[in-house]
Amino acid sequence: MKIDILTLFPAMFSHVLGDSILGRAAEQQLVQFRTVDFRKFSTNKHQTVDDTPYGGGGGMVLKPDPIFHAVESMLSESEMNSTDSSGSSADSKPRVILMCPQGELFRQKKAIELSREQHLIFICGHYEGYDERIRRYLITDEISIGDYVLTGGEIPAMAVIDAVVRLLPGVLGNQTSAWTDSFSDGLLEYPHYTRPADFRGWKVPDVLLSGNHAEIEKWRRRQSLLRTLQKRPELLEQADLSEEERRWLAQRKWE
Amino acid sequence: MKIDILTLFPAMFSHVLGDSILGRAAEQQLVQFRTVDFRKFSTNKHQTVDDTPYGGGGGMVLKPDPIFHAVESMLSESEMNSTDSSGSSADSKPRVILMCPQGELFRQKKAIELSREQHLIFICGHYEGYDERIRRYLITDEISIGDYVLTGGEIPAMAVIDAVVRLLPGVLGNQTSAWTDSFSDGLLEYPHYTRPADFRGWKVPDVLLSGNHAEIEKWRRRQSLLRTLQKRPELLEQADLSEEERRWLAQRKWE
Repeated sequence: MKIDILTLFPAMFSHVLGDSILGRAAEQQLVQFRTVDFRKFSTNKHQTVDDTPYGGGGGMVLKPDPIFHAVESMLSESEMNSTDSSGSSADSKPRVILMCPQGELFRQKKAIELSREQHLIFICGHYEGYDERIRRYLITDEISIGDYVLTGGEIPAMAVIDAVVRLLPGVLGNQTSAWTDSFSDGLLEYPHYTRPADFRGWKVPDVLLSGNHAEIEKWRRRQSLLRTLQKRPELLEQADLSEEERRWLAQRKWE
Repeated sequence: MKIDILTLFPAMFSHVLGDSILGRAAEQQLVQFRTVDFRKFSTNKHQTVDDTPYGGGGGMVLKPDPIFHAVESMLSESEMNSTDSSGSSADSKPRVILMCPQGELFRQKKAIELSREQHLIFICGHYEGYDERIRRYLITDEISIGDYVLTGGEIPAMAVIDAVVRLLPGVLGNQTSAWTDSFSDGLLEYPHYTRPADFRGWKVPDVLLSGNHAEIEKWRRRQSLLRTLQKRPELLEQADLSEEERRWLAQRKWE
């Protein structure tokens, strides 16, 4: 997978894409990252990328030209590469993703969808809004990572990239991650415990030390259900539950 | 405000906290960042911070000891500082925030709440889950930034820190940011346009060039309502709308 990031702050990405799991994925050539400062695509002599909004009001707005030019240069590059190779060019058009608070709310389902693509292009604004023509005529997706206000699209792009890249074959390897569990069955994760069995008088639940795997599985599943009921009950509506589990939960709710 | 970050990957934060708005806020001493590798607080000779889970299963679990020690050293430091000064120590206890997928869903309201604190401590796991005793006996808050799976808590902590720090007095200065608007009135933002007025035949709406400010305000508000109706209708339930606006929206919905 190829991931291009358009940003005015390319340095922000260096360690995030270079360290840890994302960095290792790039080293193993499972993914190829490129950050591009779209200021370079500005055609005016001061290399400005923003301007005041029509109709007045505070703030600055990112101009259409530099971002169109930057994305188009990537698209034509990608087209050249795909006609070079086998011929499955039609279904491998890059996704052009605008990070912005008005976008579709990012969820695990979207991460899975994007992980099947060959080329993602992320557009990150900073401080400013985007000229509406970018949204209407250039992009394929608009993503928001949550209902909160950030100073720019860089951290949101990192979140989406992290969620997508960890799903690529070979990236997590054999390492089954505890983080994986959450949301994969629509429930919150059960509690984890490791050594010491007694930490300052706070003990690990007996069942986990019992060696009875059926009992452990049952305890974990119920803890997962209970935690979801307590913290995020709305997730239960979509979760995959047995008839018996629904009855058990109804009982807990009633108590 | 003081912000401490416990992580196994401190380098990931260097440019994110050093560049742009967050970096400038730190330079102006509006906020003080510190990243701490909690591996240093491990007391065993191999400096391990994780171990296999009781009860079996894949993945590793972060041990309680190093994280308890790291947080407690920060808490005692903070207590010493607060008894040194005036005496309002009671209400300035640090918030100890665990970044994890099971946490409370982060929203703008929480960012505002945290921006009133004096000291935030973030705990970021990576790959692993946390020993449950950390969650039960050490922290004050558990935050998730959204319903998707990431490789660790670092990027989520960056998102929360960015959302909080931009709210601190003096950080954004006079710069009214277009990004500010979203969610502040519970609606998505209206479209922005800047020069050129005609870009490849795609024109800026006439009303924005009219100079009629009342009309511009009206257009923007309606665009904001329409966009929210189309993309995030659930936000309308909580939004602050007039009786007339509700009627207008009901009409649009019906069409």
